[in-house]
Amino acid sequence: MYTVGRTRAGSLWLLLLLLAVVVLAPSCGGWRAENASTAEPGQEASTDVVVESSPLPSWAESASRDAVVDFVARVTDPASPDFVPEAERIATFDNDGTLWSERPVYFQLLFAIDRVKALTSEHPEWKDQQPFKAVLEGDMEALAEAGERGLLELVMASHAGMTTVEFEAIVEDWLSTARHPELDRPYTELVFQPMLELLEYLRFNGFKTFIVSGGGTEFMRPWTEAVYGVAPEQVVGSSIKVEYEARDGEPVLVRLPEIDFIDDKAGKPVGIHKFIGRRPIAAFGNSDGDFQMLEWTTGGEGARLGVLIHHTDAEREWAYDRNSHVGSLSRGLDEAAERGWVVVDMKNDWLTIY
Amino acid sequence: MYTVGRTRAGSLWLLLLLLAVVVLAPSCGGWRAENASTAEPGQEASTDVVVESSPLPSWAESASRDAVVDFVARVTDPASPDFVPEAERIATFDNDGTLWSERPVYFQLLFAIDRVKALTSEHPEWKDQQPFKAVLEGDMEALAEAGERGLLELVMASHAGMTTVEFEAIVEDWLSTARHPELDRPYTELVFQPMLELLEYLRFNGFKTFIVSGGGTEFMRPWTEAVYGVAPEQVVGSSIKVEYEARDGEPVLVRLPEIDFIDDKAGKPVGIHKFIGRRPIAAFGNSDGDFQMLEWTTGGEGARLGVLIHHTDAEREWAYDRNSHVGSLSRGLDEAAERGWVVVDMKNDWLTIY
Repeated sequence: MYTVGRTRAGSLWLLLLLLAVVVLAPSCGGWRAENASTAEPGQEASTDVVVESSPLPSWAESASRDAVVDFVARVTDPASPDFVPEAERIATFDNDGTLWSERPVYFQLLFAIDRVKALTSEHPEWKDQQPFKAVLEGDMEALAEAGERGLLELVMASHAGMTTVEFEAIVEDWLSTARHPELDRPYTELVFQPMLELLEYLRFNGFKTFIVSGGGTEFMRPWTEAVYGVAPEQVVGSSIKVEYEARDGEPVLVRLPEIDFIDDKAGKPVGIHKFIGRRPIAAFGNSDGDFQMLEWTTGGEGARLGVLIHHTDAEREWAYDRNSHVGSLSRGLDEAAERGWVVVDMKNDWLTIY
Repeated sequence: MYTVGRTRAGSLWLLLLLLAVVVLAPSCGGWRAENASTAEPGQEASTDVVVESSPLPSWAESASRDAVVDFVARVTDPASPDFVPEAERIATFDNDGTLWSERPVYFQLLFAIDRVKALTSEHPEWKDQQPFKAVLEGDMEALAEAGERGLLELVMASHAGMTTVEFEAIVEDWLSTARHPELDRPYTELVFQPMLELLEYLRFNGFKTFIVSGGGTEFMRPWTEAVYGVAPEQVVGSSIKVEYEARDGEPVLVRLPEIDFIDDKAGKPVGIHKFIGRRPIAAFGNSDGDFQMLEWTTGGEGARLGVLIHHTDAEREWAYDRNSHVGSLSRGLDEAAERGWVVVDMKNDWLTIY
């Protein structure tokens, strides 16, 4: 009776391990085009978007924009056969690669590595102990040898053991100081302006917007409201277990080094069901990790919208899909047309990236 | 790494077993006072409550009503030092015994027993197999002998194996036809009118209202919006695991006979954290199963409200607390005063019950 999906969790950690190897490799800068021409370091992520007069101003006139606007028009028009009551207008968004960038690797992995480095003084034993030694020395071979178990130790050491309040402060502190290793900008400035407009446009039209991400729920909640306008209670992600206890007489929730839920692939419809309890009518992703979320969303009756963000812009962001080590998109591209999913061409469909 | 709280889950099932024994006992009618004088069979549960002119009309002028109104005034007045921004006005409500009645036992257990009886024709083997035989024959002794494991089988047989859509229909069908064994009214008419007014009053004042119940999430979600005005995505409860798969080429979520989460006692702050991600500023319960939820809620900084509904009305509902087999309230009564929690005396503080 008491089991969890070892295989699914296992494959995620294996993926993360590969990513760790990738991000720590000295040549990782090479995966990205040199010239991020529109990147302006001082630019603030903002949800203050005027949607009434000109919805989606950062979107080019394109088939993908028209598909989105047409869908919204149909489900919000009471005279339309596709009308959907406001309470049922649920839209779900992947985060990494859909709302913000995910190169050279998921930003949360960069956070984990920074945390391990920051905690070294409290853990002098790490300098002789794998996989920490490998991280501290940038030793890729040793990290690879530490395997899945090693990466799990890495993540748990950086994400567990503290209270939820302490972890929130750690995330906030990191986000306010850390900068992207290649673009030299705060991570919260690497959110996609067209998607901010889309979130706001949908909410303006009575949608409830949720994040449904493979990333950590508690890594996202501290900042999604300020950056995306998505409240903590509308963030669904992967999680570790927490336990309620008293510390110095005060009740606290302590983060435990045990996987609770992996919100990826077939886990996304499960997460949607667990946390939202309704089938979305619109879903937005960018990788095959989002396939089942789009399948579940668009498989329902009535008007449905499935959108894949295709990373095609090597100049302004990154260009990648089928063979990417992160955000791989292959089955989605193969089946988008027959399933009626919209594929957004970032290079041609977006006037602005960040 | 891969463990779940056997002990906590175990104690819940043990409790349920005791309840099963209780509900099936021939004399269970004796736990309730005879005369439910205000019960009107035709009365509909409704959230259409006018709150602007006279908030909480079903509440008597009382210290408990004043405490609630005073709290709401303080956290919503921008000039008050206790002002709380709207986004942080999270209020959580237990369900059984707080929003609706819970006698003679939790209504969900009556549902499980009805389901087992309804499924008998598909399971001819049950007439010779415990614990089903015991349910079908009303054999309390045999049911008790089947123990915790037996009750788990009972619940899983009635709650798992079908798709989430099928289960939702089963719950809706049951609620539309089943009647309370003593009051002979639909269960959805056994919701507390003063609490409906309170939910609406809080929402009118910018609160987001959540249910945080030990009952099954998916047993509640099909009807909480219509009955309480609480959307499915704002219902937190106990759950079993679900799995995403294809059936006849269609994606479905199938309910598995495995515990996922028990939202009771110390599990309530955990559930609040998992599903809401913010610490509530107000919490409402009625039993010691809500103790930690109130402790967590009122232990935060700033103005906080903790409320216990005390079942004191043997005429119009049921009178019980410390030694009750269901909804036992003992530690809460002992510590309410020192913790500043409000205890609502149903008999004297509520003009109307249902």
